[in-house]
Amino acid sequence: MQKPTVRDLYTRESYPEESIEMEGWVRTIRSSKKIAFIEMNDGTFLKNAQIIVKSANTPNFKDITKIPISATIKVTGKVIETPDAPQPFEIHADSLKEIGGSNSDYPLQKKAHSYEFLRKIAHLRPRTNTFYSVFKIRSLAAFAIHQYLQSKGFVYVNTPIITSSDTEGAGQMFRVTTMDMNNLPKTKDGKVDDSKDFFGQETNLTVSGQLPGEAYTLAFKDSYTFGPTFRAENSHTSRHASEFWMIEPDMAFANLQDIIDVQEGIVKYVIKYLFDHAEEELKFLDENVNHGLIKRLMHTKNEKFAVVTYTKAIKLLEDSGADFKAPVKWGIDLQSEHERYLSEQIFKKPVFVTDYPKGIKAFYMRDNEDGKTVAAVDMLMPTIGEMSGGSEREERYNELKKKIHDFNLPPEEYQWYLELRKYGETKHSGFGIGFERLLMYVTGMENIRDVIPFPREPGNAPF
Amino acid sequence: MQKPTVRDLYTRESYPEESIEMEGWVRTIRSSKKIAFIEMNDGTFLKNAQIIVKSANTPNFKDITKIPISATIKVTGKVIETPDAPQPFEIHADSLKEIGGSNSDYPLQKKAHSYEFLRKIAHLRPRTNTFYSVFKIRSLAAFAIHQYLQSKGFVYVNTPIITSSDTEGAGQMFRVTTMDMNNLPKTKDGKVDDSKDFFGQETNLTVSGQLPGEAYTLAFKDSYTFGPTFRAENSHTSRHASEFWMIEPDMAFANLQDIIDVQEGIVKYVIKYLFDHAEEELKFLDENVNHGLIKRLMHTKNEKFAVVTYTKAIKLLEDSGADFKAPVKWGIDLQSEHERYLSEQIFKKPVFVTDYPKGIKAFYMRDNEDGKTVAAVDMLMPTIGEMSGGSEREERYNELKKKIHDFNLPPEEYQWYLELRKYGETKHSGFGIGFERLLMYVTGMENIRDVIPFPREPGNAPF
Repeated sequence: MQKPTVRDLYTRESYPEESIEMEGWVRTIRSSKKIAFIEMNDGTFLKNAQIIVKSANTPNFKDITKIPISATIKVTGKVIETPDAPQPFEIHADSLKEIGGSNSDYPLQKKAHSYEFLRKIAHLRPRTNTFYSVFKIRSLAAFAIHQYLQSKGFVYVNTPIITSSDTEGAGQMFRVTTMDMNNLPKTKDGKVDDSKDFFGQETNLTVSGQLPGEAYTLAFKDSYTFGPTFRAENSHTSRHASEFWMIEPDMAFANLQDIIDVQEGIVKYVIKYLFDHAEEELKFLDENVNHGLIKRLMHTKNEKFAVVTYTKAIKLLEDSGADFKAPVKWGIDLQSEHERYLSEQIFKKPVFVTDYPKGIKAFYMRDNEDGKTVAAVDMLMPTIGEMSGGSEREERYNELKKKIHDFNLPPEEYQWYLELRKYGETKHSGFGIGFERLLMYVTGMENIRDVIPFPREPGNAPF
Repeated sequence: MQKPTVRDLYTRESYPEESIEMEGWVRTIRSSKKIAFIEMNDGTFLKNAQIIVKSANTPNFKDITKIPISATIKVTGKVIETPDAPQPFEIHADSLKEIGGSNSDYPLQKKAHSYEFLRKIAHLRPRTNTFYSVFKIRSLAAFAIHQYLQSKGFVYVNTPIITSSDTEGAGQMFRVTTMDMNNLPKTKDGKVDDSKDFFGQETNLTVSGQLPGEAYTLAFKDSYTFGPTFRAENSHTSRHASEFWMIEPDMAFANLQDIIDVQEGIVKYVIKYLFDHAEEELKFLDENVNHGLIKRLMHTKNEKFAVVTYTKAIKLLEDSGADFKAPVKWGIDLQSEHERYLSEQIFKKPVFVTDYPKGIKAFYMRDNEDGKTVAAVDMLMPTIGEMSGGSEREERYNELKKKIHDFNLPPEEYQWYLELRKYGETKHSGFGIGFERLLMYVTGMENIRDVIPFPREPGNAPF
């Protein structure tokens, strides 16, 4: 007997009447005295298979009508083509039984639930159509990114999560320790003795894999990280999480234009991959979550992204006459409202802003000749704002050393990073994409907590 | 002018004489008065391109002979086919210049270095042939695993790194905190007040993504994690690291045989993928690091893995007459020496050992009917021992509740995990592969520190 999945059945061209056996979960049951309609999902496809059970030839018909939502069933029967029905086929059951139980207080009954409520049952929410779609897309998008970069020869490097250095020289970090908090080892002067900690020193969770990633760029030409990063910021916005994933490609012998091309390439490839592999899910989200999603993605896939310098962007914002909460003038760090205005109102598409003032950017970015700006680039997206940030990396040993000094960074922590230049001053450039920001863009979800399976935020780390 | 990479040139069928421009790093320079031979690597290929510079037509010839190892050069010239030479082509330089410096004390000169020494310069070691090969293979193997699982419909889920629960109910964990260690908040009775910590409770780094991963299995049928996991064990063996990556697939409506098939499938697919994409690297490792590597991998790819019950395996070990450090009898946890003896001496290939005594396995494993064993399976590999471990998951609500009680686990922490069953008792099974163990197997490296870009071990977390 064939054992197709629901996906198998939905992706077939035709339905020769055949005997099948299937297992899945009950999503809904409607029944009369003579007939029962069961919507069964088995996790392989967004849509359900409709099963028809007739009381006349089903001894346990009465039991079947009482099966609770979300119970596991096994059905044998025939797949019948239904050219006039909304779904292309249905299953006429020869036998059907409950093989795993559920309970009548299952929280995901037919009615719609708020995202806030569903976050509290993050272990159950992927069973809803919305979160099934979102997390299927998360999986496909992750794979698409690997595929795109691997096909271009990028080497994937797993940079350390536990680190003794701080990439940005800024940003709150989480401490990692095995010391007994109720009995901390102390030095003679009464301070905590970090040398007694597990790693013999203070360690933290990484905020970025970029710096160690660069070591791999300078061996493999093109490298990328794709892993979790952490920020211990007491931030409660819809765009920030304490734990999120970043993709950080870095390319040797490459300049700003090269990384602009790859950033645009990644976004377009992900969208194309989703059109090819997540048609049902995108359609569902477009119809039920964020109207216009598919049209916006199509536009993003087909349009050439805009490029503008920071200096020009500031001028455009100043001239726009728009009323911003944070005043615009040369030297400011662009806020989300400015970023969105640029991409949504002025360019009406994704836009790369380049050459930011050096004072607002990280120490490792390469100074431009003007003495005022660095060769940096941020990719700004409609509805999202900043989705990625990158730069040429300062590859000149003396200049980098000076910047570490000027930024008041502890030189001993950056010794190895300087050595990458000491033993090979190679022009290279890279960027970091916030994976969840990309997911918000391609799913239309507006809160970062709704694109992370088990989100971490201040005051909250259940599961 | 064409700008090929070294890989482009090595993977060509023929070499029509053409003008090219290339950038790369100097690996070696040999020179006489008339001619210089430069081996240039650009990171795209294990092998170097040989560049020939003639003094007669090169005004800066003398400067060229003094370029330090690892400096960045730009060369223009012609690619010439060399049918009689070991390498298929060479580059005749029209011009060559140093475009990025290095220093004469570059630590990776021609001579061989010990792995111990190279670990201390983990930021430079991927520039050696050995570690170039190892980390190229790491990247390719990671992608192969994603590709294999995605092609079978598995959904990738990023389970949380920061967690408030402890999957195994065992194993030392790293605490994650933002509290000021020199000024800890205290409760009235003088204990540390964890409720004042960032997440409002004690949190740790995950030891496994399995439990939250199961929530996704029960929505998508087949799910997998692939991410970092942590063990704060003061262990200094060559097989343990404090931070390592695991792949944890989990399948609904699946039993032990189903996960045996997928485990074997992953190993074979990775090997096949490496034969197709890392021929040079495997050849290098076979010739220089671990003789017989390719033969062993070929054998693994082609042989059906063995399957034996734990009870039978114990009998085989007892009857073997071998002298083990840890005595063998029914009920023991197999040690590395037993695992290797089974796969290397008895079966002479990878072997799955099934149905372990329940006392030595985790609470979530499904009890067998015999009342003594659980439906568990470990995959044991020659030279490695355990590479993966899995089981059927106890899906019966009451049985799972009882096991949580019997294992003395805090029931409130497992409430959500129990709810996965309360709302859907579905037979499912899964396993975890130690990614670094797999890498040791396919590279022939014998120390886990040599397959992790920046390894973390007790007392040591540089970079």
